[in-house]
Amino acid sequence: MAMNTNPARGMRDFLPEDKALREYVKSTIRKVYETSGFTEIETPAVENIENLLGSDGGENLKLIYKILKRGEKLDLDQSGLNESDLADLGLRYDLTIPLCRYYANNKANLPGVFKAIQIGNVYRAERSQKGRYRTFVQCDVDVIGDTSITTEIDLINTVTKALTALSLNNFVVRINDRRVLKGAIAFAGFSDDEFPKVCIILDKMDKIGEDGVKNELLKESYDEANIDKLMDVLKVVSSDNIEALKNYGVEEAAVESLSTIISAVKMLSGGAYDIEFDFTLVRGMGYYTGTIFEIAMSDLGYSVAGGGRYDELIGRFIGESVPACGFSIGFERIVDLLKERNFKPNQRDKVALVYDESTAINVVMSTAEQLRTEGSIVSILQKAKKFGKQLNRFEAEGYNKVAILNNDALELKNLLEE
Amino acid sequence: MAMNTNPARGMRDFLPEDKALREYVKSTIRKVYETSGFTEIETPAVENIENLLGSDGGENLKLIYKILKRGEKLDLDQSGLNESDLADLGLRYDLTIPLCRYYANNKANLPGVFKAIQIGNVYRAERSQKGRYRTFVQCDVDVIGDTSITTEIDLINTVTKALTALSLNNFVVRINDRRVLKGAIAFAGFSDDEFPKVCIILDKMDKIGEDGVKNELLKESYDEANIDKLMDVLKVVSSDNIEALKNYGVEEAAVESLSTIISAVKMLSGGAYDIEFDFTLVRGMGYYTGTIFEIAMSDLGYSVAGGGRYDELIGRFIGESVPACGFSIGFERIVDLLKERNFKPNQRDKVALVYDESTAINVVMSTAEQLRTEGSIVSILQKAKKFGKQLNRFEAEGYNKVAILNNDALELKNLLEE
Repeated sequence: MAMNTNPARGMRDFLPEDKALREYVKSTIRKVYETSGFTEIETPAVENIENLLGSDGGENLKLIYKILKRGEKLDLDQSGLNESDLADLGLRYDLTIPLCRYYANNKANLPGVFKAIQIGNVYRAERSQKGRYRTFVQCDVDVIGDTSITTEIDLINTVTKALTALSLNNFVVRINDRRVLKGAIAFAGFSDDEFPKVCIILDKMDKIGEDGVKNELLKESYDEANIDKLMDVLKVVSSDNIEALKNYGVEEAAVESLSTIISAVKMLSGGAYDIEFDFTLVRGMGYYTGTIFEIAMSDLGYSVAGGGRYDELIGRFIGESVPACGFSIGFERIVDLLKERNFKPNQRDKVALVYDESTAINVVMSTAEQLRTEGSIVSILQKAKKFGKQLNRFEAEGYNKVAILNNDALELKNLLEE
Repeated sequence: MAMNTNPARGMRDFLPEDKALREYVKSTIRKVYETSGFTEIETPAVENIENLLGSDGGENLKLIYKILKRGEKLDLDQSGLNESDLADLGLRYDLTIPLCRYYANNKANLPGVFKAIQIGNVYRAERSQKGRYRTFVQCDVDVIGDTSITTEIDLINTVTKALTALSLNNFVVRINDRRVLKGAIAFAGFSDDEFPKVCIILDKMDKIGEDGVKNELLKESYDEANIDKLMDVLKVVSSDNIEALKNYGVEEAAVESLSTIISAVKMLSGGAYDIEFDFTLVRGMGYYTGTIFEIAMSDLGYSVAGGGRYDELIGRFIGESVPACGFSIGFERIVDLLKERNFKPNQRDKVALVYDESTAINVVMSTAEQLRTEGSIVSILQKAKKFGKQLNRFEAEGYNKVAILNNDALELKNLLEE
């Protein structure tokens, strides 16, 4: 049989070294999350297509991989066929829709405050391009059922600890609140209809700067007095005087909440990283209702985690209001970053145990077992005729030691020092 | 939006406790495999449909989930549409086809002797019934590129160690060799054409016994003298006198191989489990060429792992002969078995840290961090008005300790002893 040996378009095979890094990142994150009382759940990658198509996924809905109906359900003889006649299932494009469905399905068996870890592949049929994958891992942590501000603090604390555990240090937490945006933008004189567009422009501050934002707002023909009032917030309010937000129409609860979170996170970080109020932090998802936050790598200019409070989203799915707050780590970005930095997980000794025909099999096997019991990773390998070449290959293959069995005698050599 | 809250048909949501057990089983198996020099790889769950349909999967080919073409590639206006016009991708139904494709695709970057771990979901649109799932985890370990018998011994040694690490003890390894079956069945007088059917009947020995096997062979109208000669092997040959196989047309190499494997495994097991030659062990897959083995739970009558040598399979895919030998653990069976036995992974202290409004948030947070640093899992939770009920819920939710913060004072109580 002739086989197309490439993975499906936009998908990847992972070599042993890459897979080891991915599993290391997953297990490090998982362990930190578990220590904070989160428990992992799993939902299938395949969901009923109506749940996916009926969701609030915007552009993502166009990227769903749809699964063909099977057996009698697939009727190709009818005329005017369309996709909804053909597909009854699809691959999930995020982990939030499955989480909502899961919560509704299993609520009776879940704790009152449900703290969920989800680590899994999602699928999006994106246009193929470098660095854009059609399946990638999402790594979400969500608290469902708690209105308290300790939720936000603990989420930030937990996710930053996970990054630190992965040897990532040079980052900053940026924080804002949707209520701050709502309050200040209305106070400046913008209408509710104008709110989303104003947010989108504010969000570009990183890239185009204060003048750029002002120009874009002017281009939309908004009232210049409103624009100036809005830009005032930027000039006056900083992490150190969040109280000033109260002068710009922001409700007291939102100000107190931000101030308490920032103070607690500063205490917990012990100065190892900073947390900054950022009025221009918007975050794309329309479903956020309160605190929003992200973690940016200071020297790289991109974020590696983001999230916020979404007290109304689950209610939309299950018809019952449930508070929720979540944080999502950009797993693929972190893996890429660690790979670029040539990060190696702590490794055990990796021994190539080489034997030739002079050695009894039982001696080979018991020697391997002995070395394994002592803590080494041991591969049992036949000695090649060209032993020098074989030794070179061992090095390339990641072994740091070679154990040579010859007439039942064992010789252990360090490969890398030679 | 109204949501169908059930998972897709035949698929499962996993509650935190079940997921914890699944991850424990995966990580235990992974660690033992790694110690034996295996490295984990990953392939996407989605493969090009031609690779799946062109494979040797028998009945499984009918169970493939096919993925609808996207965008312009999907032309619904043509007449006489069939499935191959509609689908270009599919979900993998096993991990062997992806392994072959992966090996062909990445050979240049893989070690000469490639020892692969694969742990992943596969998908089969089986008829729905209790205990039959449409997605399940397979857990495979394969050695590609080594003809040596140390491969078989090390695979058996490694998989049995994984079972032992999972607290499974009461099992037996059954072993045979396709060359034994070939030799003895031909020696008894059966033709090559009759070979597969004779194997299928021999394989039923477990269920229908010696008389049953003989009757089924008679029913096929095979020559009675041939049948008697074949049944002779069963009567005469046992684990202790495998040499006798030489009198039944079995090639010497196969006999020596079995004898060496059995001796080495007995040495390595130290009597903790048994290894038995079983002439009626056939194993379904047609691609095996040499040693075949499985591990059966002695008291349960079913196998939890199986595998063997398949020196010709990869060649069929990649057009170059490559020796290979693999072992697959029945992950779902093992998880079900441990769940039945109420097995709990070693658990850390799980503390519900309860606070009320009298306590400053920063005290709550730093107390939680202190307990976490000392090794506990800590969830931060608001004290409920009905605290007695809340304590009962904590127990049900798996907490074994409660830490109560009141006016900044900490009280730590054991929940389970009360």
